[in-house]
Amino acid sequence: MQEFLQKTKDASQIVANLKGDIKNKVLLEMADALESNSALIIKDNEKDLIYAKENNLSSALVDRLLLNSDRIKSMSKAIREISALKDPVGRVLDGWVLENGLKIEKVAIAIGVVGIIYESRPNVTSDTAALCFKSGNVALLKGGKEAQYSNAIIAKILQEVLEKNSLPKEAVSLFPDSSREGVAKIIKEDKYLDLIIPRGGEGLIKFISQNATVPVVKHDKGLCHAYIDCDADTKKAIDISINSKTQRVGVCNAIETLLVDKAIAIEILPKLKDEFEKYNTELRGCELTREIININEAAESDFNEEYLANIISIKVVDGVNKAIAHINKYGSEHSEVIITENYTNAEKFLNQIDSACVYVNASTRFTDGGEFGFGAEVGVSTNKLHARGPMGINDLTTYKYKIYGDGQIRK
Amino acid sequence: MQEFLQKTKDASQIVANLKGDIKNKVLLEMADALESNSALIIKDNEKDLIYAKENNLSSALVDRLLLNSDRIKSMSKAIREISALKDPVGRVLDGWVLENGLKIEKVAIAIGVVGIIYESRPNVTSDTAALCFKSGNVALLKGGKEAQYSNAIIAKILQEVLEKNSLPKEAVSLFPDSSREGVAKIIKEDKYLDLIIPRGGEGLIKFISQNATVPVVKHDKGLCHAYIDCDADTKKAIDISINSKTQRVGVCNAIETLLVDKAIAIEILPKLKDEFEKYNTELRGCELTREIININEAAESDFNEEYLANIISIKVVDGVNKAIAHINKYGSEHSEVIITENYTNAEKFLNQIDSACVYVNASTRFTDGGEFGFGAEVGVSTNKLHARGPMGINDLTTYKYKIYGDGQIRK
Repeated sequence: MQEFLQKTKDASQIVANLKGDIKNKVLLEMADALESNSALIIKDNEKDLIYAKENNLSSALVDRLLLNSDRIKSMSKAIREISALKDPVGRVLDGWVLENGLKIEKVAIAIGVVGIIYESRPNVTSDTAALCFKSGNVALLKGGKEAQYSNAIIAKILQEVLEKNSLPKEAVSLFPDSSREGVAKIIKEDKYLDLIIPRGGEGLIKFISQNATVPVVKHDKGLCHAYIDCDADTKKAIDISINSKTQRVGVCNAIETLLVDKAIAIEILPKLKDEFEKYNTELRGCELTREIININEAAESDFNEEYLANIISIKVVDGVNKAIAHINKYGSEHSEVIITENYTNAEKFLNQIDSACVYVNASTRFTDGGEFGFGAEVGVSTNKLHARGPMGINDLTTYKYKIYGDGQIRK
Repeated sequence: MQEFLQKTKDASQIVANLKGDIKNKVLLEMADALESNSALIIKDNEKDLIYAKENNLSSALVDRLLLNSDRIKSMSKAIREISALKDPVGRVLDGWVLENGLKIEKVAIAIGVVGIIYESRPNVTSDTAALCFKSGNVALLKGGKEAQYSNAIIAKILQEVLEKNSLPKEAVSLFPDSSREGVAKIIKEDKYLDLIIPRGGEGLIKFISQNATVPVVKHDKGLCHAYIDCDADTKKAIDISINSKTQRVGVCNAIETLLVDKAIAIEILPKLKDEFEKYNTELRGCELTREIININEAAESDFNEEYLANIISIKVVDGVNKAIAHINKYGSEHSEVIITENYTNAEKFLNQIDSACVYVNASTRFTDGGEFGFGAEVGVSTNKLHARGPMGINDLTTYKYKIYGDGQIRK
């Protein structure tokens, strides 16, 4: 294990200093290699599919596992898009000259060895390998057991391209020991690993957060809220509520709770009910809500729940301050929206809500690296430090200070 | 404990949203209150001094503990300087408009509840309390046992100013349980604490890094290097080596090892020896060094050691690549300098050394928030993520995205 980790560390020093044109050439060759080896990938993917069927995995899961020619083409396309992104390494983030003439530059550099733990979809293997390589990092990957053959062949094809270009194959590596014990061990190897990004179930993320000594950027749950203010535009309120909940359920940036100002509740709740019924959304309301519309009851526990399903809880609140208090108490600091035409209430909401993304009059579904214009997305961080909210490729860098002198000494 | 932590969390939501003029007024009142309560502080400080003498603490440690009227004035002066800094909260770090008209702003915000663990000097209590308050954070402080009475009275005086201004006194708090068990417990309270900054001995930092689930920004050791390239200017080489080692020994940004290119070794080593002798520095050399100058022998272990004393190890290396390899192997990623007039070697060193601060032709002693122009210093981070190198008040913030729409929904 130590020997392998030392190799990834050594590889990281090489990858961190590659010029952009070489990185892009390698990425384009990786994209080509996946396509030209489609048959090989599909063959190994079938082994995973057989395992999935033998173990009665759900049809949704089997569909996420499945690779065919079109899906492999999409993987290659994603790599080509990543190669087209601006190099995140070497950006000058800040710079100034001191009175003594020292010139200080704050420059973006690669993080080093980045461990990524994920589930199911084999395309994450090639996506994250490409994102890490482009940002000068070594990708140390662990996919789900159910995709092990698919992930292994994808990594092997990418490694062959690295070797053909006289680069260390360890720049794209799979965890040497994917067992729970192996993972428990590697997340304590802070001498070798610089960052771990767990993407997956709550249990996995909790286990890693509580046991890692390597820094962790979590991609955890989203318990997001929309608040319809008394000064909301009715059409915007309905459109945004519906879109934030139903455009795609089961994602972290969908809303779970709708807060409605009591001054507008009687007017807007019946319209919301009619509209949500078109999308077959189950509504669960507080007592005040249920005095206005006839829907299921929301228990206190409903306001703590990330449904990841077509269900929404509704609560009538007394103004923006109460809405903010509710969100700061129950929320997961992910994404929240106020719908209002009132300047002061909008500003108050933007400033006092402690979430990664706070919206006025727009759907929370925009919390996404691609939608933010970052290009390929690493994920949505629920950390407060290092990276917060949608993570683009720039968030796979850290920085160092370069200081240019001509003989300065400290007095 | 839970109740106390909830109070600090609640306080953090208030402090995070205070306007700059209120924060500055409170800080100036804190500065005044320390001065006008000098007698009280000195009286309680004496209890710590008595404990120190009873326990035979070193005279150096006793001197660090001692508070007198002048030192209290310095503490007040530091707070007034912090109040004069630009507010780090609310800075717009980035901003752009998407094609659909959504305006995205990335804005600096307070981190939340920041735990700071430190030793000895009681002035750290008022310094860090003021830095945290200015940056909208709650300071949760734990000083050393040897300074407990001094820290308690300082915190009490600051809290009285908070209460006089109708602010929660928990905005400046001492750890409720300072025992090792208490610390072990609190560093796992990630629901309440947002960041822990340990400043102190290696044992303390290791314990916290290995046991915390709260994110940690370490202020760890510095094993710094100077490399004298074949194309070095002799005067710069000598001045910078001497200054980097001797301007103050026992600090993290002093160099421990001097690497000398073999092409210049015969010329420069005797001059370095003469100069270092004026400063009574003990020189320990590799075999090649000792063929040129008569000094003590450096064992392999010397190159792994942060002396924190007036000792330096010297190694002759074969060019800049070998120097870089040595530093990346033995260094602590803190501060390193190349002395050279050669453009290519300077660039190579700046790019390939993986340290927080990499210098050309200037003393490593400049790695310091004050010297960098940050004003008051939080410390020097040896983390790779969140904050790296000298930490100013801006590094006590994180960010959120504010997104301004006019009805956008996701398609």
